[in-house]
Amino acid sequence: MKDRYVVAILGATGAVGSRLISELADSKIPIERVKLLASKRSAGKKLQFKGQTIIVEEASPESFDDVDLVLSSAGGAVSKQLLPEAVKRGAVCVDNTSAFRMDPTVPLVVPGVNEKQLKYHHGIIANPNCSTIQMVAALNPIYKKWGLKQIIVSTYQAVSGAGQSAWNEMRDEAKDYLSDRPMHPEILPTKGQKHHYPLAFNLLPQIDVFEEDGYTHEEWKMIHETKKILLNDADAPEIKVTATCVRVPVAVGHGESVYFTVDDEKSSVHEIKELIAATPRLVLQDDPKEQLYPQPINAQGKRETFVGRLRADAENPGAFNMWIVADNLLRGAASNTVEIAECLVKEQLM
Amino acid sequence: MKDRYVVAILGATGAVGSRLISELADSKIPIERVKLLASKRSAGKKLQFKGQTIIVEEASPESFDDVDLVLSSAGGAVSKQLLPEAVKRGAVCVDNTSAFRMDPTVPLVVPGVNEKQLKYHHGIIANPNCSTIQMVAALNPIYKKWGLKQIIVSTYQAVSGAGQSAWNEMRDEAKDYLSDRPMHPEILPTKGQKHHYPLAFNLLPQIDVFEEDGYTHEEWKMIHETKKILLNDADAPEIKVTATCVRVPVAVGHGESVYFTVDDEKSSVHEIKELIAATPRLVLQDDPKEQLYPQPINAQGKRETFVGRLRADAENPGAFNMWIVADNLLRGAASNTVEIAECLVKEQLM
Repeated sequence: MKDRYVVAILGATGAVGSRLISELADSKIPIERVKLLASKRSAGKKLQFKGQTIIVEEASPESFDDVDLVLSSAGGAVSKQLLPEAVKRGAVCVDNTSAFRMDPTVPLVVPGVNEKQLKYHHGIIANPNCSTIQMVAALNPIYKKWGLKQIIVSTYQAVSGAGQSAWNEMRDEAKDYLSDRPMHPEILPTKGQKHHYPLAFNLLPQIDVFEEDGYTHEEWKMIHETKKILLNDADAPEIKVTATCVRVPVAVGHGESVYFTVDDEKSSVHEIKELIAATPRLVLQDDPKEQLYPQPINAQGKRETFVGRLRADAENPGAFNMWIVADNLLRGAASNTVEIAECLVKEQLM
Repeated sequence: MKDRYVVAILGATGAVGSRLISELADSKIPIERVKLLASKRSAGKKLQFKGQTIIVEEASPESFDDVDLVLSSAGGAVSKQLLPEAVKRGAVCVDNTSAFRMDPTVPLVVPGVNEKQLKYHHGIIANPNCSTIQMVAALNPIYKKWGLKQIIVSTYQAVSGAGQSAWNEMRDEAKDYLSDRPMHPEILPTKGQKHHYPLAFNLLPQIDVFEEDGYTHEEWKMIHETKKILLNDADAPEIKVTATCVRVPVAVGHGESVYFTVDDEKSSVHEIKELIAATPRLVLQDDPKEQLYPQPINAQGKRETFVGRLRADAENPGAFNMWIVADNLLRGAASNTVEIAECLVKEQLM
């Protein structure tokens, strides 16, 4: 165990990368030095870390020769290529992409939910999908207390989850729309696909590519990751999960409408609200009389997960509706990644 | 039965009112004369009907003295006050507000689903809520063929459902947001409430006011109206329905993520798709390979209900996910209202 660590941020110039820099600066991790890595295109850019100017370097296997900790958010292909190189050189990597999430040897961790899994790592720890993190964060205390039989989620996902370029595209579209000019979509719903559609003042029920069964990758990520995170014990009873993922014209902050069924039919809305309010990293915003409920605009820039609109399904004992919002770049990405790194340091798992 | 009818449009200057005028102009109803009625504030405005200029008159009980058919969309309070006066004077009224929808003596009708109920009218026929219409239109053929046990819906509702002024407010907010100016919400989520929040680039999980149990009026409308429309027979088995209604920054076109469970577990996605494609007024847009799915931007200005993203819940036989989009001002309001009036004429129920 070292006193201070050399930390590399891979994908430092992206939407999540910029938050990784600020979250790392605010963290409890003792830092020797920070390296900012990105693609050749972004190399040479100057970024700030704690008032110090750092020049972005092009990422290569050798970039990790002197690195202890890698925080990665440069896309799945880059992670698959470079993180094993970093591990070979002795670094521990926290990866924000989907590259290793479903690898049975890689812990998939949300601190506050299943950080105990960290001790099984072999150099790489995966950060779950943004839409998964906020849902399991809100459901975990409920699962621990009453058990969960079924989860049905419909997402309302912000454009920043598709990266800075998609975010810029939606802003340009909105300006064109408001000036009665034609919109020019080239990125959304998903880079590299055949068709592109405007998101401004529209809804796109496609996030990531489609599987043969009609579900998108994003929907399967939510289904598989939720089970991997919550069902840590081999003998835990199965939780049924299904998802519909929709991109909405919001800049930052994913919304989720979650219908869930608990094992214990005696559980009540009142008890669930008390439990949410008492759970660290969760904020209960649920007062219909005061029109208090989670909104993306209020979650932006926050590290917490906001929970509200808790209602019992009057026709199904033990079933409830809930509305969850969190900053997808912070709670759903950078904050979770840095919290994982903090746990690694604290538990001497580096 | 007359050869030609005097038709009054009540609330002619609103977002739905303008569509009632154009839908009536396109309809098969034989028209003697059209009266355009609105509040005192809008009286004197000049509007076009089939190339003819009509001056908007202030609505009063006497406005209906010579009227055969009223198409109403001026708000619940106005309907409650004026439609009984119109009925007293011999008119038949098709009402777009929630004023009479749950009145057991008033048919609540979606043509193509339950127009047989029209023959029980006593002068007033209610047009369901916009979010209800598109959902029951898509679910009805499935219900008729395989039965329905449960419906869980999360809505993505366009701002035009809250009226022209809310629509203007969101446009202004979007312009302010894109110019880094503060936004000034005064209408949304719901007129007359204590708090107002911006909708541009945000999500508001409140449509209409809250009930004591934490559900909104809009959510209860969807629950109660769906049952009233689908369960026409007293001995029909109950369908469980629950809803979460969210306002999204879209101008026109409601989206709905619907999870439903059928009685017959042998039903398949393929059969459901074939059934949807063969049903009048429904358009199947479901080809993941071609990234074909319903989008508000494509539904705008159309009278059909668009259905796609049909997927089986692999863990629950007989359960499916579906994505529905329709123009809330046309399919969800004006077109349905005028179709009801056409049925009344055709079936000699005027």
